Amino acid sequence: MSETSGWENPLRDPLDRRLPRIAGPSGLVIFGVTGDLSRKKLMPAVYDLANRGLLPPGFSLVGFARRDWADEDFAQIVHDAVEHHSRTPFREEVWQQLAEGMRFIPGDFSDDTAFERLRATIEDLDKAQGTGGNFAFYLSVPPKFFPTVVEQLKQHGLSDAPAGSWRRAVIEKPFGHDLASAKELNAIVHEVFAPDEVFRIDHYLGKETVQNILALRFANTMFEPIWNRSFVDHVQITMAEDIGIGGRAGYYDGIGAARDVIQNHLLQLMALTAMEEPSGFDAPSLVTEKLKVFKAVELPVNLGAYTVRGQYAAGWQGGEKVIGYLQEDGIDTQSKTDTYAAIKLEVNNRRWAGVPFYLRTGKRLGRRVTEIAVVFQRAPHSPFDTTATAELGQNALVIRVQPDEGVTVRFGSKVPGTSMELRDVTMDFAYGESFTESSPEAYERLILDLLLGDANLFPRTEEVEESWRILDPIEEYWAAHGKPAQYPAGTWGPREADEMLARDGRSWRRP
Amino acid sequence: MSETSGWENPLRDPLDRRLPRIAGPSGLVIFGVTGDLSRKKLMPAVYDLANRGLLPPGFSLVGFARRDWADEDFAQIVHDAVEHHSRTPFREEVWQQLAEGMRFIPGDFSDDTAFERLRATIEDLDKAQGTGGNFAFYLSVPPKFFPTVVEQLKQHGLSDAPAGSWRRAVIEKPFGHDLASAKELNAIVHEVFAPDEVFRIDHYLGKETVQNILALRFANTMFEPIWNRSFVDHVQITMAEDIGIGGRAGYYDGIGAARDVIQNHLLQLMALTAMEEPSGFDAPSLVTEKLKVFKAVELPVNLGAYTVRGQYAAGWQGGEKVIGYLQEDGIDTQSKTDTYAAIKLEVNNRRWAGVPFYLRTGKRLGRRVTEIAVVFQRAPHSPFDTTATAELGQNALVIRVQPDEGVTVRFGSKVPGTSMELRDVTMDFAYGESFTESSPEAYERLILDLLLGDANLFPRTEEVEESWRILDPIEEYWAAHGKPAQYPAGTWGPREADEMLARDGRSWRRP
Repeated sequence: MSETSGWENPLRDPLDRRLPRIAGPSGLVIFGVTGDLSRKKLMPAVYDLANRGLLPPGFSLVGFARRDWADEDFAQIVHDAVEHHSRTPFREEVWQQLAEGMRFIPGDFSDDTAFERLRATIEDLDKAQGTGGNFAFYLSVPPKFFPTVVEQLKQHGLSDAPAGSWRRAVIEKPFGHDLASAKELNAIVHEVFAPDEVFRIDHYLGKETVQNILALRFANTMFEPIWNRSFVDHVQITMAEDIGIGGRAGYYDGIGAARDVIQNHLLQLMALTAMEEPSGFDAPSLVTEKLKVFKAVELPVNLGAYTVRGQYAAGWQGGEKVIGYLQEDGIDTQSKTDTYAAIKLEVNNRRWAGVPFYLRTGKRLGRRVTEIAVVFQRAPHSPFDTTATAELGQNALVIRVQPDEGVTVRFGSKVPGTSMELRDVTMDFAYGESFTESSPEAYERLILDLLLGDANLFPRTEEVEESWRILDPIEEYWAAHGKPAQYPAGTWGPREADEMLARDGRSWRRP
Repeated sequence: MSETSGWENPLRDPLDRRLPRIAGPSGLVIFGVTGDLSRKKLMPAVYDLANRGLLPPGFSLVGFARRDWADEDFAQIVHDAVEHHSRTPFREEVWQQLAEGMRFIPGDFSDDTAFERLRATIEDLDKAQGTGGNFAFYLSVPPKFFPTVVEQLKQHGLSDAPAGSWRRAVIEKPFGHDLASAKELNAIVHEVFAPDEVFRIDHYLGKETVQNILALRFANTMFEPIWNRSFVDHVQITMAEDIGIGGRAGYYDGIGAARDVIQNHLLQLMALTAMEEPSGFDAPSLVTEKLKVFKAVELPVNLGAYTVRGQYAAGWQGGEKVIGYLQEDGIDTQSKTDTYAAIKLEVNNRRWAGVPFYLRTGKRLGRRVTEIAVVFQRAPHSPFDTTATAELGQNALVIRVQPDEGVTVRFGSKVPGTSMELRDVTMDFAYGESFTESSPEAYERLILDLLLGDANLFPRTEEVEESWRILDPIEEYWAAHGKPAQYPAGTWGPREADEMLARDGRSWRRP
């Protein structure tokens, strides 16, 4: 970028190369290793990290599942997953070294002998591979198995780290389905693992664009002065999917869009957008600031007017006719599950009082896009004729989380011509154009952080519980009032969502 | 842009089309019609305006010069000029109508009969073409002829507008060569024409990008809050040319870069960048604000350290060896004329106190570019590691005046990867990509404004005089101290200019 940025940086020492963050001796045990997440994300991420030289030479990967596999069979499964889904090129020598640390434990979660074998395997790996007793247990399993697995880990002495080593547990969402169940789940996990030994994965936090929110805000001078109620009109946070529920009926029905996406991804994005500058980039400082945002969140008094849920009906997507949610395989035809949810939140603190945050997510929407749009107030006064500014919208800064990662600023510019006429234009920054470095997958970043014990990008117990505190009244209101509004697949959600913003004199972006 | 800006504008009435600004009955008399400016800029601009339907049907163009031409010869000259230099396509029917109003007056500026013929011609045109007595006199002649021409216009009753009509005078730079000569020139012109009848052309003010400075600042919310000493570190205004003096030796030698460019273009750009919001977009309000800036300008105490002049030596440009200024045809080999000038100014008011404005211009520099770079302070505190920010420069907003017209914002972003490393990236808005409308030439805009009597984009007497008040002490200092530093053609000016900024801990952009 130095060619286009227009300045040399006199402070830059050309010999100073950042030290890469490399994991120390360690291993990863995956429960539920036959699942989709494991094959499509975890195994490829482990390989990519190894390929980038960020794993120690003896790094070990242990699979645990109800399959009659030998170590070699497991290695073959990983091999196939890596070939199909890795980000970086396949290199035989990297693979060979990685494969040496692969083990498989066949067994049920209630099977004591399997957990004994796991204990023995870990001890063997410590000797053969030099993993030093440092192991992370990745619970890539449905939440109902959490109690059994953590209990077994405790029973067989696997959760207790030998002196000078560490043991960690990784759990994936859903972190409960309301505040009560989240607390219950946390209690179970924390009975066995200390709070700083538990890593909750919200893979959105591993995305480059999400990590860049704080860089954008706090490494720069230009944005923070206008990042408050004096200049911001409102914020829109959108995660839109074009797909339907696919094969996830069993998981999704009864959960819905708000619990599946708003509770974790969108509230996390909101916290990063709204938070004050943390005193440091360590996990406790970040958690402190995110919690302050969550605690300042207040729901609208009128939940009927300022929350909307929808359910996709049959429609057209990408030129193809698609069925509605109630016609999907495995879905109760009377299901009241929301596949679309939009809510309005207020953050009642000095910075944001009076600035609404509109959050929305949905399946089968117009296109796949996640973005944060900070929409600014109109200029307090325009010295231009009203005709000149008739086509002028509001300034906005849009963080494009995915796809087409980057930042867009919308502002008004003079239209070329012999009169003063103003129109909105955009200014773009795209990761793809600005960096030769390709972005690591979120899971690469998160697994590396896990092995390094760096908890910055993992939501803590309190955050999860605060999120449910925000969402619970909405879910309760919905449960007691009517059912989701239908919207045709391929559109931007139910009419009621547009009406919700129109009530405030605003409109949703069509991203 | 509505496709990419992401919102519909609910306030926009689709039936509301801006009324185009169309000149009323009028004619233009050009003195010095055989010159380069006339052929390359004025004649094509008149045609382009006619082609766009912005001139009245009977618009008339009168040439005045020492040539033995008939009206048809003149029309042929204009025809050729239009064919070669017009922005819009040639259309025979537009040309035919325009040609009907073309007249030529052969004669010397001291020739009374010629001016009598001009008077008679104007009266004829009023009858034949319906010009209504409204005429502008464009003095595209060296300043030494100004007194004669305005005196003749007065003598022959041409400067007095018949009841209900108007007469205007247009003058091109140089508006004198110092404050005294500028005052003298103004006195001569204003003896014949009232202040609001005199239109001084600074063609930079007709450029779209220059007009957009005020749109950018005052039609938007995002920029004005950070447009002051609390956030801006300094401002760099650059007009770089890659060409040498070419055939302009006679005009240029003894004038130099500071008088030729800083006094008018760069100080005007600076005024638009630094001024407060005008109470309206009328000429008096704009002049008021620009004058406030000029009056707040203070020169550095140490002119030796904070002004630099240079002279290009032989060097390489675009792969070709080029000669130095002192070797150019018609230049005194002892000439001390500056072909490069860089100065530091302070604007001592509440908004800008302590923020230096660095202005520079030069010939035979690295490339042709004019830009305004507003460079922001570093963030007051960085929560990131110092290693993370080692490659991070200062935020900047760059208005690209020409070529490649647009706006660039430079800011810091996270480098993709598994550590927090920050680097400068840019965000761009380009006129060419954002608008289907092509930009009118500066002279189209300015001639239309002249015919409409809209003086917004024309510097007034007081502005010209204030500019000289700023420049005079620098020219006097230079005249009394040494001579310009040599710089090889094709480089970015003398070493002294880099030292000047280094003295303040800053560096020039390499645009």
